Amino acid sequence: MNVPADTRATGTSTAPASAATPLAVIGLGPMGLALADLLLKSGHRLTLWNRSPDKAAALIERGAALAATPAAAIAASDVIFVCVLDYQAAEAILDQPGVSEALRGRLIINLGTGGPDDARRVQARVQRHGGHYLDGAIQAAPQQMGQPDTPLFLSGPKAQFDRVEPLLKVLAGHLVYLGDAIDAAAFMDLATLSYVYGAYAGFLHGAHIAEVAGMDVATYGRLVRAIAPSFGAFFEHQGQVIASGDFRMTQSPMRISVPAVRRILDASRRLGINAELPSLVDGWLGQASAKGLENEELAALIQVLRR
Amino acid sequence: MNVPADTRATGTSTAPASAATPLAVIGLGPMGLALADLLLKSGHRLTLWNRSPDKAAALIERGAALAATPAAAIAASDVIFVCVLDYQAAEAILDQPGVSEALRGRLIINLGTGGPDDARRVQARVQRHGGHYLDGAIQAAPQQMGQPDTPLFLSGPKAQFDRVEPLLKVLAGHLVYLGDAIDAAAFMDLATLSYVYGAYAGFLHGAHIAEVAGMDVATYGRLVRAIAPSFGAFFEHQGQVIASGDFRMTQSPMRISVPAVRRILDASRRLGINAELPSLVDGWLGQASAKGLENEELAALIQVLRR
Repeated sequence: MNVPADTRATGTSTAPASAATPLAVIGLGPMGLALADLLLKSGHRLTLWNRSPDKAAALIERGAALAATPAAAIAASDVIFVCVLDYQAAEAILDQPGVSEALRGRLIINLGTGGPDDARRVQARVQRHGGHYLDGAIQAAPQQMGQPDTPLFLSGPKAQFDRVEPLLKVLAGHLVYLGDAIDAAAFMDLATLSYVYGAYAGFLHGAHIAEVAGMDVATYGRLVRAIAPSFGAFFEHQGQVIASGDFRMTQSPMRISVPAVRRILDASRRLGINAELPSLVDGWLGQASAKGLENEELAALIQVLRR
Repeated sequence: MNVPADTRATGTSTAPASAATPLAVIGLGPMGLALADLLLKSGHRLTLWNRSPDKAAALIERGAALAATPAAAIAASDVIFVCVLDYQAAEAILDQPGVSEALRGRLIINLGTGGPDDARRVQARVQRHGGHYLDGAIQAAPQQMGQPDTPLFLSGPKAQFDRVEPLLKVLAGHLVYLGDAIDAAAFMDLATLSYVYGAYAGFLHGAHIAEVAGMDVATYGRLVRAIAPSFGAFFEHQGQVIASGDFRMTQSPMRISVPAVRRILDASRRLGINAELPSLVDGWLGQASAKGLENEELAALIQVLRR
């Protein structure tokens, strides 16, 4: 069923979101479907749009409406979640006929992945047409959505965030509002992605050591899982140290890490395997040692990156 | 009180360890003290040796004995935990007068940090003098010892491991026996350390993005802590994929990671900050793309390291 743009009054996006707030989800990939499912369960009137409409079938049986165009979905809703691959895909939707006109008074919440520049560009465009914009970055897989600990970063105008906070909590209990600057969620997303891919590179190097040494890589993966949470706690502490600017604490002095990383590097070279990752970290530690930082917290290593 | 070497019969290290098994801890740094505390609580007769004997004072009041020399501590015990800084320090202890003669029939469990070569060298030396040897790698801080989930890697002769397993569980509930090859614990230690330092490098790069973007690094640290456990679970899956050799599963295809890492790299360059870590991972992904691996599991990236 299509929802024509004229079936309801112009959106009044200053009122707090309630169960009566009509919502839309644009983009029904695995994440969009997960969001739509949660919003429908929470009792909202929900309009959907997706390039291939068959993805919406099961949700329509449960009461969601299908819009014929993105413009119709936006016009029918106060708050519109856009959940497409990236910002280029999101902008292709904004390019569709009638969308500019439909944006007035609507709140667009973009949950696709992209960089800080993307967020600034899309906000400017939505605002130019009288719409409101929040930028979000999901830190979970589709099947992890809707839990009390599901993390979701948001940035943009505080008044808009406050208005939809209860709605967002339906999607992700661990909401992190990062301020008015629209690019903050994208920056924080890049920062946590850096952690994720650094950890992945370290995981891969370790997996390669394990396989070259004739050990079971599945056991290695189980062990990494076992130690991951306690290192998470360690990283929280390290973040506090960096934020404080005081590296003189001694919970984990850098001098312990210097020989540890050197051992990984030496063993990798002796095994004749790729040594790029331990070389990189060993190089940073070498520069930190040269700066006389060995007796400071390991976190003082960030001073090498700052140069 | 010193325990002279002749106050007890020659160690009979084939009997299973029980509360009657006399134990020693050599090396009373923070980790050695934690081990001695746990062993004493478990009701064992415990002999201590440390370069500066005053570290033993509190434990002696609780019933531990102090040996005048490493040889005396070894002679007084069936099972000897060596917990000094590294293998060089452990070998300096084996060089002490009378130690070679005291080793016969004793089981040395070395818990200091070192590489695979170190473990092989020390085992050969202990065995040459009629002693038994297990090599261990502790994956926790001193204050985390003795918990059901404290991980401890062990390798060496299975019969020796079986004999002391209950004793080791007192120290660390999550025991991981890695087989007869004496260097297995050191290799697995290097592998998990690779994960830890890769994660640390990623954490630092992300912290630097956060600070350059004007965000609170302490918040970033809290967020990394929040996502660390779920990525631990992801790494367990990745280990299974690598062990299986079948990269065709599609839980997390590599094509998602290629633009994600490129975004980190591009943003780092645009911010004018150190881009070594994302460059490294981006380079690996580029090689994987060139090999046509983008639609395989991200774990297929290990094929780049294997070349």
